[in-house]
Amino acid sequence: MNNRSIIITIVVILLVIAGFNIAQTKEDESFSSYVDKDGKITRPTDFKEEWTFLGTWTLPDNEDDGMHIVYTQPGVIEEYRQNGGEFPDGAILIKEVRSIKSQAMTTGPKVIHAENQKLWFVMVKDEKNRFPDNPKWGDGWGWALYYADDPSKDVSTNYKKDCLGCHVPAKLTDFVYVEGYPVLKK
Amino acid sequence: MNNRSIIITIVVILLVIAGFNIAQTKEDESFSSYVDKDGKITRPTDFKEEWTFLGTWTLPDNEDDGMHIVYTQPGVIEEYRQNGGEFPDGAILIKEVRSIKSQAMTTGPKVIHAENQKLWFVMVKDEKNRFPDNPKWGDGWGWALYYADDPSKDVSTNYKKDCLGCHVPAKLTDFVYVEGYPVLKK
Repeated sequence: MNNRSIIITIVVILLVIAGFNIAQTKEDESFSSYVDKDGKITRPTDFKEEWTFLGTWTLPDNEDDGMHIVYTQPGVIEEYRQNGGEFPDGAILIKEVRSIKSQAMTTGPKVIHAENQKLWFVMVKDEKNRFPDNPKWGDGWGWALYYADDPSKDVSTNYKKDCLGCHVPAKLTDFVYVEGYPVLKK
Repeated sequence: MNNRSIIITIVVILLVIAGFNIAQTKEDESFSSYVDKDGKITRPTDFKEEWTFLGTWTLPDNEDDGMHIVYTQPGVIEEYRQNGGEFPDGAILIKEVRSIKSQAMTTGPKVIHAENQKLWFVMVKDEKNRFPDNPKWGDGWGWALYYADDPSKDVSTNYKKDCLGCHVPAKLTDFVYVEGYPVLKK
């Protein structure tokens, strides 16, 4: 192997590495790996181990669905703060709803913790109104609902019917009850 | 530059890269970046954005300290499962205690969310009984307590007095109330 062929080999290796990086960047720039070209939303499955906890809503008198636990992707909290309090395009909120158990503990006579998972609500921030003809998208978000007995199936049909009823009271904060997520404030 | 000098240059670059990796590995193998040589425990500060949520305990009738929110480091859940249900050496549990607010919402007449942070409990898993003479270490853990008015100061003095009272009932599960952390089960 002479000088020239060694140099050519090194240049080829560098170009291949650069090519991989460009391909990777392009993939990262797509809207969301959880949304297909028609706006179908796939439920995230790795959020409990990999994502960031936002906050909990506890309904102490509802054993069936008494703990609502909300997560978002890594980095979203920082972007939210930098954006002056707006969720970035592509941000996902997933709310896991679990049954609860109440018991006496050393900390108090009634202490509640989460038990079985029941369902998940998903919201995907969409600043560009990407799916105007899809009834699961609107008001700046994509909306989805999955039950634990078939956790990959979005059973929502129309966000205005299935989701807005509960979210309209939070319209002024982009339909999100941010007062339950004090971590958003720094 | 001839063949030999090009090859020598490449070998030197590879050795430097390998050296950095070895140094990095050695640093990662130290017990914990939150524990000094005498067993002093530093409170983690980036856990809300960077760590993994384990679970919540809600005390619906205690406005002052009604939400206990527990986090651990990234990867601990996976190691716990692989270890057959044991926290790995160096694992940290941090429990943030917050005041709560209760209100009527569309989901129910009494819905609770977290408000102001009050204090933090920290446990550091220590499989090797590293600090036998430090009264804040024992029973397989290091123990610490910090209040929000001076969040870098561990105000605990002796884990047997300050911590065990509440943790003894969970002795069979290594002093951790794992039933509140369903994410540990897969």
